[in-house]
Amino acid sequence: MQLLDGKKTSDEIKKELAQKVAQRKLEGKKIPHLAAILVGNDGGSMTYVNAKVKACDQIGFESTLIRYDSSVSEEILLGKVQQLNEDKSIDGFIVQLPLPDHIDELRVTQAIDPMKDVDGFHPVNLGNMVLNLPGFLPATPAGIVEIIKRNGIETSGKRCVVIGRSNIVGMPVSIMLSRNADPGNCTVTLTHSRTQNIKEICLTADILISAIGKPGFVKADMVKEGAVVIDVGTTRVPDDSRARGWRLRGDVDFDEVAPKCSFITPVPGGVGPMTIASLMINTLRAMELEGK
Amino acid sequence: MQLLDGKKTSDEIKKELAQKVAQRKLEGKKIPHLAAILVGNDGGSMTYVNAKVKACDQIGFESTLIRYDSSVSEEILLGKVQQLNEDKSIDGFIVQLPLPDHIDELRVTQAIDPMKDVDGFHPVNLGNMVLNLPGFLPATPAGIVEIIKRNGIETSGKRCVVIGRSNIVGMPVSIMLSRNADPGNCTVTLTHSRTQNIKEICLTADILISAIGKPGFVKADMVKEGAVVIDVGTTRVPDDSRARGWRLRGDVDFDEVAPKCSFITPVPGGVGPMTIASLMINTLRAMELEGK
Repeated sequence: MQLLDGKKTSDEIKKELAQKVAQRKLEGKKIPHLAAILVGNDGGSMTYVNAKVKACDQIGFESTLIRYDSSVSEEILLGKVQQLNEDKSIDGFIVQLPLPDHIDELRVTQAIDPMKDVDGFHPVNLGNMVLNLPGFLPATPAGIVEIIKRNGIETSGKRCVVIGRSNIVGMPVSIMLSRNADPGNCTVTLTHSRTQNIKEICLTADILISAIGKPGFVKADMVKEGAVVIDVGTTRVPDDSRARGWRLRGDVDFDEVAPKCSFITPVPGGVGPMTIASLMINTLRAMELEGK
Repeated sequence: MQLLDGKKTSDEIKKELAQKVAQRKLEGKKIPHLAAILVGNDGGSMTYVNAKVKACDQIGFESTLIRYDSSVSEEILLGKVQQLNEDKSIDGFIVQLPLPDHIDELRVTQAIDPMKDVDGFHPVNLGNMVLNLPGFLPATPAGIVEIIKRNGIETSGKRCVVIGRSNIVGMPVSIMLSRNADPGNCTVTLTHSRTQNIKEICLTADILISAIGKPGFVKADMVKEGAVVIDVGTTRVPDDSRARGWRLRGDVDFDEVAPKCSFITPVPGGVGPMTIASLMINTLRAMELEGK
């Protein structure tokens, strides 16, 4: 069993990006600038956004964090999105999800200029993904594909099972790995809450990707010997042994599944850091696409 | 075995649409207007476009057929697309594919205003499909879903195998049937040229959809007893017994597969007429979305 070390792989990517930024600085060129909008005080969201800002610092990107109270109106939020769309100094930006119930997430996501949509959630970017055209790939699926690629895992002709059909992970990663691309060319089965015989289906997977947020859902008897297992789950579970009172748990019962795997991502330190690396890649690309 | 009669189902849909058009006429409202651009003299393309124009006549839609020689430049074609985008009398239009090699099909497809893209090929419409948002669904996949629906076939929790990952059929129908929708909620496996053990995978299908254009590819030993089989293939094969010298053959070896099926579409008279019905549904919707 080999660990797919997302921390290490994302550090490599960040180092490559930092070199590009340093080179741009030398040449007097624009430095990529990522903005993030954070609404409210959700612990998970704050952690993610802070990690994104920190990654910008490490690489040498500029970053701007815009915070709103959870009572902010949809109108004000949409106004800020519009302002960021028009702000030429900002290359890309994200609105950290989830948003409070009184705000229509889809409306906000769709208001973002597709050319600045470095999270890859806009319909135009998802459509381009379906068509295998250039565009911004959703950050988490792109991070999954990147860690597969950088660890030399063959995907062509392999059977892949994805658990969970969310708009931001399961559905897009199933499309990306189905496409005629490298990595890609998998035979993908997308499973979800209505799927019957999930265990039997998971056992067919050479590559198993779980993205449902149910801690320990994937057990050893669902995994084929030698499979590659990618765990996208990051659920906070109570843990009195930690000062903060919780720890992150993935969808996969790591201890019992890991011995059967050829490769497996840990939680934390697997897909999470790769998502941030993808966001950084997208931000640099957003700037380059503008011809800056 | 029950035949999924696309001709009959599409006639029902056309009758419903004709009633709506008649009602609109009575009320002095605008009549839907579909335009079609046809480039060159490809036999299949001419047949399809003629069938679309004929369907408009039957329903009472207005239609305009615009023809170009196969030597037409991309520039002229894009100019016509732009003109149709701006023409308020046209509610929706299609550019019949395939286009000659010297023209970039994707560029043309993407130039169509998404609000008039009644073929549902534009990235925005595909992205909306992924997100389960309103938009124009690609005509052939939408026709497949419609014939499933109108024949009372349960899809939720069923296993579906799609053969072929084309942008216009295989990929989108796999997404549509995966979504949390009715019909939908299938556990879908998308197979393609790189898939190994295709026979074994097809045997798991409660619903098998083939869209590769290889006559007779699907044999009885690939189909589970009681499966629903949807045949999207329409390949012209030589047939001396016909005056025109050819006949249409599907991807499915109908004679040997049909006895095992609960439902099966014939070729011709299955998915083909449903594609046209979907296009008509989309055209009416395009007009309604404009508030006309």
